[in-house]
Amino acid sequence: MTIRVSIAGATGYSGSELAAILARHPSAEVVGAFSGGSSAGAPFASLHPSLRGVPGPVVAPFSIDAILATKPDVVFLATPNELSAEAVPALLAGGTTVIDLSGSFRLRDASLYPVKYGFEHPAPALLGEAVYGLTEWCNGSLAGAKLVANPGCYPTSILLATRPLRPLLAEGTTIVCDAKSGVSGAGKRAEAEYSFTELAGNFKAYGVGTHRHEPEIAAWLEHGEPNVIFVPHLLPVPRGILSTIYLNFEEETTAEDVAWLFASAYADAPFVHVHPAGRLPSLKDVVGTPRCEIGFTLLAGGRSAVVVSVIDNLLKGAASQAVQNFNRAFGLGETEGLA
Amino acid sequence: MTIRVSIAGATGYSGSELAAILARHPSAEVVGAFSGGSSAGAPFASLHPSLRGVPGPVVAPFSIDAILATKPDVVFLATPNELSAEAVPALLAGGTTVIDLSGSFRLRDASLYPVKYGFEHPAPALLGEAVYGLTEWCNGSLAGAKLVANPGCYPTSILLATRPLRPLLAEGTTIVCDAKSGVSGAGKRAEAEYSFTELAGNFKAYGVGTHRHEPEIAAWLEHGEPNVIFVPHLLPVPRGILSTIYLNFEEETTAEDVAWLFASAYADAPFVHVHPAGRLPSLKDVVGTPRCEIGFTLLAGGRSAVVVSVIDNLLKGAASQAVQNFNRAFGLGETEGLA
Amino acid sequence: MTIRVSIAGATGYSGSELAAILARHPSAEVVGAFSGGSSAGAPFASLHPSLRGVPGPVVAPFSIDAILATKPDVVFLATPNELSAEAVPALLAGGTTVIDLSGSFRLRDASLYPVKYGFEHPAPALLGEAVYGLTEWCNGSLAGAKLVANPGCYPTSILLATRPLRPLLAEGTTIVCDAKSGVSGAGKRAEAEYSFTELAGNFKAYGVGTHRHEPEIAAWLEHGEPNVIFVPHLLPVPRGILSTIYLNFEEETTAEDVAWLFASAYADAPFVHVHPAGRLPSLKDVVGTPRCEIGFTLLAGGRSAVVVSVIDNLLKGAASQAVQNFNRAFGLGETEGLA
Amino acid sequence: MTIRVSIAGATGYSGSELAAILARHPSAEVVGAFSGGSSAGAPFASLHPSLRGVPGPVVAPFSIDAILATKPDVVFLATPNELSAEAVPALLAGGTTVIDLSGSFRLRDASLYPVKYGFEHPAPALLGEAVYGLTEWCNGSLAGAKLVANPGCYPTSILLATRPLRPLLAEGTTIVCDAKSGVSGAGKRAEAEYSFTELAGNFKAYGVGTHRHEPEIAAWLEHGEPNVIFVPHLLPVPRGILSTIYLNFEEETTAEDVAWLFASAYADAPFVHVHPAGRLPSLKDVVGTPRCEIGFTLLAGGRSAVVVSVIDNLLKGAASQAVQNFNRAFGLGETEGLA
Repeated sequence: MTIRVSIAGATGYSGSELAAILARHPSAEVVGAFSGGSSAGAPFASLHPSLRGVPGPVVAPFSIDAILATKPDVVFLATPNELSAEAVPALLAGGTTVIDLSGSFRLRDASLYPVKYGFEHPAPALLGEAVYGLTEWCNGSLAGAKLVANPGCYPTSILLATRPLRPLLAEGTTIVCDAKSGVSGAGKRAEAEYSFTELAGNFKAYGVGTHRHEPEIAAWLEHGEPNVIFVPHLLPVPRGILSTIYLNFEEETTAEDVAWLFASAYADAPFVHVHPAGRLPSLKDVVGTPRCEIGFTLLAGGRSAVVVSVIDNLLKGAASQAVQNFNRAFGLGETEGLA
Repeated sequence: MTIRVSIAGATGYSGSELAAILARHPSAEVVGAFSGGSSAGAPFASLHPSLRGVPGPVVAPFSIDAILATKPDVVFLATPNELSAEAVPALLAGGTTVIDLSGSFRLRDASLYPVKYGFEHPAPALLGEAVYGLTEWCNGSLAGAKLVANPGCYPTSILLATRPLRPLLAEGTTIVCDAKSGVSGAGKRAEAEYSFTELAGNFKAYGVGTHRHEPEIAAWLEHGEPNVIFVPHLLPVPRGILSTIYLNFEEETTAEDVAWLFASAYADAPFVHVHPAGRLPSLKDVVGTPRCEIGFTLLAGGRSAVVVSVIDNLLKGAASQAVQNFNRAFGLGETEGLA
Repeated sequence: MTIRVSIAGATGYSGSELAAILARHPSAEVVGAFSGGSSAGAPFASLHPSLRGVPGPVVAPFSIDAILATKPDVVFLATPNELSAEAVPALLAGGTTVIDLSGSFRLRDASLYPVKYGFEHPAPALLGEAVYGLTEWCNGSLAGAKLVANPGCYPTSILLATRPLRPLLAEGTTIVCDAKSGVSGAGKRAEAEYSFTELAGNFKAYGVGTHRHEPEIAAWLEHGEPNVIFVPHLLPVPRGILSTIYLNFEEETTAEDVAWLFASAYADAPFVHVHPAGRLPSLKDVVGTPRCEIGFTLLAGGRSAVVVSVIDNLLKGAASQAVQNFNRAFGLGETEGLA
Repeated sequence: MTIRVSIAGATGYSGSELAAILARHPSAEVVGAFSGGSSAGAPFASLHPSLRGVPGPVVAPFSIDAILATKPDVVFLATPNELSAEAVPALLAGGTTVIDLSGSFRLRDASLYPVKYGFEHPAPALLGEAVYGLTEWCNGSLAGAKLVANPGCYPTSILLATRPLRPLLAEGTTIVCDAKSGVSGAGKRAEAEYSFTELAGNFKAYGVGTHRHEPEIAAWLEHGEPNVIFVPHLLPVPRGILSTIYLNFEEETTAEDVAWLFASAYADAPFVHVHPAGRLPSLKDVVGTPRCEIGFTLLAGGRSAVVVSVIDNLLKGAASQAVQNFNRAFGLGETEGLA
């Protein structure tokens, strides 16, 4: 079976990783690559260093009609939020499956969009239909899904590390999520603020209390009314997210309890690896891979723990998770094209 | 007045910053520079790029007798912990003032040394006599001090940001300190683990629940029996510490309340700068300077806040704070040699 | 004596280094700071981390009238090339001395400006009057100079390393200059190409055979019709230039010959340091300092040599050399404000 | 056909890349992994982030007997030079093919070993038998080869860029090779000199006129008695080599001439890509890939050119070229396991 795939936003960082993965996916054929910028006309092989000599469609200017003209079975949208929100209804109407890497269909509550994303959502009715594609927690919902909202990079790293431990959490507890991301998480930016000279040797927090990923984390933790404090930081590295998460437990807990919950959650997950207690992963363990790695340390008394989670923001935090979701939606093996 | 100064451990990162500052200090004359390593014989000017052409003593092999032979009024010890612990009593007996940049006299409780530093403290009686040199909180205790324990780099960044807000803290609260340090904080290390190839593009947490700075922070917060969770991380930058601190308040608090407490604490502090609410400093604001900069954001409801503190770990976290303490101990202006 | 100083382009990288130096210069008073961008209104202290708490003029929008209204004795122009070219005649007419850090008055040959700088030179008559401010080679020409063309960063590093050895050069020889610069050399750039994500871990050559510094090097080598091949590269560091220069000698030469020529040239130069044969300087020896450091290795046979030269591109390659020139032009000590 | 493969030095940087490639090679089975250090006992999957979950042999202590006991068809030696020199005769006597990534069999002239490598060569008779594995220039010599000397990283980048242009070179010309390598080229180093703190933001030349790769380049250029000047530099990046090569031509030459020679040399080379005239590759084009990319610019007059060549020092400069050679030696497709 060959599935016809089009990629919109193919010249961005996530889009080019999608191109690199899908060009070698045994069940996919990349039939279209689209970009809104001045990159139209670029050869497919220019999208990623690994594509030198690999055939594929020339990058074309983004338009719904042009995308549908490639007769795609599935469209990956690695486009800006508002553009995705506008495009999804039209693409669905055109009969294609959509896997959206933007934030446009991640929140169920349409009223959050003006506040967090700066626009009124144009298709609020679809918010309830989108499958939130945190792959390892989707169970059967991805099979045959027509619209997948691929999770944010920070929420992916934090939810994978936190959801298994919900049975332990103290009532009404605050969950502190101190997260650090490489600069590619901000996308391709033509701003002095993101220049090498400004960021090399630098480090800073940003978006405290206002980042749009905070409500996404709170909503998809699916655990009462959690009090999530989320502080992202900008790391002077190109790729990777490390989240340090501070959890308080209702009762005294052992490392075995924690390990057992993680093992139950991820025994069959090919792309989540949980380390033994006390062994914490570093960014380099996962950069360039489709994995999430998790480690934890129980603090004295067993009433709290520090959990560390690492992913490559462009892979498990974007492109490779989108391909996991694609595989599941089309009934393929979860690791196809990713191993 | 010219004060005779000797520096032990002059070839380490903190020691070489001390040499750079003290060589230009208007009231100091560097009469000795000592090193335990193979650096003996190195010219003084080789200690730091800013010293090219600046006269000063050749680096000599470390020994108590050699140091005392320079007839120092004060000795700065930028030496390993155990070496400092052994040297201090002999130097004090020799009649010199000692400013110790190691951890050997920072803790009052001698029983912590075997656990946290790996040695039985050789001079426990002196622990109570050492002035803990967090300059801005020393009031009059530095004047004429004979032994100053210069604070650790992490504790400096965290205590300066937290102590002013103690009146607000919730009863029995947990203080989460998520700290990130540049690699020079580990000292000059001949280990593959600290090599450029291993650390460039990497990031990791370490020492969770076991770092020796955790009891130092808890002790010198001087606020009941605080529950401090301290997680240090290794940033891929040469210099600088950024600490993100999560505080819970007993009552609803306003930004004005917080700003007022900071202003009260640091109105006359030349090297602490507190930003207006919502403006958080970044590493680059302080690297290469003797300052601590602090920012904060109140979270919704006013019952918690995120405080961010940045310092240069080798300056305010080591050498420049040591010179502040030297200035105060000898009755000089606090900014002398540092402005 | 206090000299009234205005800085135009104060928010750029070179301009902010100028502000940092001149604010502490014992004979200067910064009376104006100007910027063409959206930075107008920024407080003086925001220009550089070392200026926190230092008084100075608020940044004002750039205009000739506004600059002259500050009644400056000297104006430092750290402005774009074409802007400098337009401003200089008006400023000179206003009676002030001008030290121009742009390329607008570095070339004597006006016909090169359309080709290399993209504009017709508006004041070709002044090209012959400007003093090319490679300080160590200016002899008396800087005293009382009204217009100083501060050299380019690459030419500074290459000319200082090459001019002393002209007596040795083979007739009609080609001089290969393989130069590598930190990213700040490109100025504050709001372009994706200069973003951290693109440049971290990357390295490349650029401008081969077309860079505007090539004719500047060739002209100011002042040695026949030299065949200079200049290939600049972009280093993934914020600051610093290292130039590797390959020279062929007319006759067999010894290390002593080379050392003697360097010593003759720079015996009294406070900011040029030449290492003994075989000891090559690295970028870190000079970053943050106003020095040029030079090293060399004679190759087998003594008919060729490799010379390595390092500077901080923003200091000796721009701001500190401008202040050296200022000091000389106003009869101050050459190291004033720089030591 | 499954070929039994053992890897010695599997925990070094080149060795771990070999493990990552060979573990997924369709015609290879990794039957042994050996290391001289304290890494014995490490699980195979710990050798490289991409190997998580991949089965393979536990790392065993290096010994000839232990290697031969794995009954290998081929042994890859990613071991120190002197160790390789000692091991090769014994392994060949044991009947296995050897692909040696060290420098021990790269030079034909045994008298160079004491000078350049610091040891008397123990098996000079084998120097003439080893195939110098610059794959694209080996023609038939690799088929069935029993001993392959895998080229050095610098020579690979320089020879691939220079050999095709030999017909153009001026008689008796000097070839300047200004090369820049990422830090992993130095291997896993437990030395303060290679620490992150020392190298971040730094850049330097080293080994001018003395580097052991200089005679390797000169010998394998196979073009008269070339006068090669080779100056390596240490780039603050983990991986990648960029060489800037300055060539003088006997006659006036056009870009078409140069392009034609490159095309003739590499028309069928899957891992060498030559850019059109004037388009120079950067490090990022090749890091993480098995390719060499080459660009060139003709200088005015057509009598000289600048050629830029980039490789990943651990792949085309070591591991992937070794696998190319393995593929050729065993009659497999050249791209097998590498595409």
